[in-house]
Amino acid sequence: MPWIDITYRFPAGVDGSHEAHVIAVGQTAGTWGPEWENRSGQIKSHLAQVQDVVRQPDGTSLGVVRFPLSNCPEGIGSLLTMVYGKYSLSGPARIVKMVLPGGWGIPSRFGIEGIRRLTGVEDRPLFMGIFKPSLGLSPSDHSRILEEAGMAGLDIIKDDEILPDLPECSALERLRACRPVLEKILKFRKSRGLREMLYAINLSGRADTLLELARRLVAEGANALLLNVLPYGFPVLEALASDPLVQVPLFVHPAFSGAISGSRDWGLDHSVTLGTLASAAGADAVLIPTHYGSLPFSQEEEGKVRDILWQKGVFPVPSAGVHPGVLPRVMGDYGKQAILNAGTGIMDHPGGVAQGVQAFYEALARHMNQQSFFLEDLPEGPLRKAVRKWGA
Amino acid sequence: MPWIDITYRFPAGVDGSHEAHVIAVGQTAGTWGPEWENRSGQIKSHLAQVQDVVRQPDGTSLGVVRFPLSNCPEGIGSLLTMVYGKYSLSGPARIVKMVLPGGWGIPSRFGIEGIRRLTGVEDRPLFMGIFKPSLGLSPSDHSRILEEAGMAGLDIIKDDEILPDLPECSALERLRACRPVLEKILKFRKSRGLREMLYAINLSGRADTLLELARRLVAEGANALLLNVLPYGFPVLEALASDPLVQVPLFVHPAFSGAISGSRDWGLDHSVTLGTLASAAGADAVLIPTHYGSLPFSQEEEGKVRDILWQKGVFPVPSAGVHPGVLPRVMGDYGKQAILNAGTGIMDHPGGVAQGVQAFYEALARHMNQQSFFLEDLPEGPLRKAVRKWGA
Repeated sequence: MPWIDITYRFPAGVDGSHEAHVIAVGQTAGTWGPEWENRSGQIKSHLAQVQDVVRQPDGTSLGVVRFPLSNCPEGIGSLLTMVYGKYSLSGPARIVKMVLPGGWGIPSRFGIEGIRRLTGVEDRPLFMGIFKPSLGLSPSDHSRILEEAGMAGLDIIKDDEILPDLPECSALERLRACRPVLEKILKFRKSRGLREMLYAINLSGRADTLLELARRLVAEGANALLLNVLPYGFPVLEALASDPLVQVPLFVHPAFSGAISGSRDWGLDHSVTLGTLASAAGADAVLIPTHYGSLPFSQEEEGKVRDILWQKGVFPVPSAGVHPGVLPRVMGDYGKQAILNAGTGIMDHPGGVAQGVQAFYEALARHMNQQSFFLEDLPEGPLRKAVRKWGA
Repeated sequence: MPWIDITYRFPAGVDGSHEAHVIAVGQTAGTWGPEWENRSGQIKSHLAQVQDVVRQPDGTSLGVVRFPLSNCPEGIGSLLTMVYGKYSLSGPARIVKMVLPGGWGIPSRFGIEGIRRLTGVEDRPLFMGIFKPSLGLSPSDHSRILEEAGMAGLDIIKDDEILPDLPECSALERLRACRPVLEKILKFRKSRGLREMLYAINLSGRADTLLELARRLVAEGANALLLNVLPYGFPVLEALASDPLVQVPLFVHPAFSGAISGSRDWGLDHSVTLGTLASAAGADAVLIPTHYGSLPFSQEEEGKVRDILWQKGVFPVPSAGVHPGVLPRVMGDYGKQAILNAGTGIMDHPGGVAQGVQAFYEALARHMNQQSFFLEDLPEGPLRKAVRKWGA
């Protein structure tokens, strides 16, 4: 269907029906005078239509406005301008759902299937870590951490999202220091029937230099990339995901998401930005705060993002406050179709990075065997140390 | 000074002092264990410092956190990730001010001075219009409107911000239809001691195709461009403003600004996004909703954006609800250092587009002569028709 359906939530006290009509006209063709009578067929074809406005028990109203797809043939930049652009300045209204036509947007080139294929991990959740401390390490510090984590079985590692292309620890130098280690880890993984370990290098810079950096990194052997899609813009992700020279999985970080989704009455739901839009822009994996983690994120919202990503074959990456003791909860929500992402939950393990990784495997085995995670039931070893530190 | 000072406002009931420390550590180096003792000097050099947290009479608190410039050498994408990224997910806090070091960012290549030089308008505010209806016109419709408006003295015209690169009315075809008309208008303007009329063509697409489109348009004679900086991202503006092949004024539209600035407790003030960041990303002119216009925008916020733009030599473009009758108010706020931007306020003038433009000149003359704008005092003519329709 050549339509884009947007659901807006208007706060109590706002005439949702009126506002939906304001949006349908004001965010498309606008008004026109009799001098355009000869063009009116063409102009009218661009108008949006109010489908439905329903008052909710809490006084808010939900209005669905249907926009012609032809108003927005290109991508998310013009989509956001159309559905929320100038109207966003006119008063509180929140986009809680977007239904894009099948085939609209840029398909993930890897997604769940591709990341499983690259890493060779078939039948379990993947484990991902984050280089810590976030800033202040040298490229060789990165390579040392990588080696320890990778030889302990970590599947994926990423830069911290705030690590930019620092002169003393540039993205290219991090890659160069880590590339030989990734080879070594590959040999180890092959001996266990696995394939590559991925290192998602954080991208930064102006749009042009960022895209150039991505190509350069991939040309020199980067096997994954990380983008803070909200500060950089969905059009930057769309460019990466369309670039024939950037054929690696794209991991998307939700940094800055609260600026757009934090308020109840303004902006867009996380499920729209991190779910619908990130997957329509070609993300292969998207980090989602867990509802029991270090950030206040609701279970409902986490579930919505997850479901939208799954539908599009994109890997959800539960993050923030993930440590070995929460593995049963993560698997309760995601089963094996997730990438568990732990920063301090691996790097700050009392026994060191390798034990931080091992604790996750131990947790997985216990969970699969339906064994208890009570501290007193745990044998000495990495998992027990983790649960003693962070709980379960 | 090699620091970036960010002022956060924390809502009443939030321990601002605690939160400021969370930001200073969590958004920089994070924590690290004894195994990094040998790196601690380097790591500590990345920590931010809490400068000041002051409780306000309304219970909110204002906290200033000082970040090392060296954490963020590249631009606004990494700046936003650092100062608000993951923290934005942790609870309400709003950035109300950013102080960037002198020289940080990308200077405007035109700004007030350059746009005055290009257009030859020295001693008065500039007048700008918007092609209307927003969607549904053909390239030749654009050229007809342009001719009427330009020969009546309009200095600048822009596409509506929601007009993307439609197949039936592409940016390039709009330019090609309008370019000969701009030449004709140039001759007319020269005869009056002026120079070029500018046509700011709206950019859209993925980051890569947008940048390519901008180069193509400029190569074919475009003399200004328009960007919806918030949906596309500041890094896209930074790329345009750094591109040696895009040597034309960049007009920035605030579409989507409410998503980030609408709520009181989340996001960033308009003065930060439309003022500090737009000018640090190389904008030459920025559209600002007027406080008496069609959008609810406070006088204080409008004034803050204006002052920041002026400081950086960037042209403020008061917009939304601008018509001839409000000229005295606009000039009360901006004097002559503004570009008055009217969409329907020109295009829907009862006497047509040319009279829509003439009404602004008539308004300017009356205002300079301190004459009344009461309907009964106005002579027959374009201004009287405008004031009868829209008031004063």
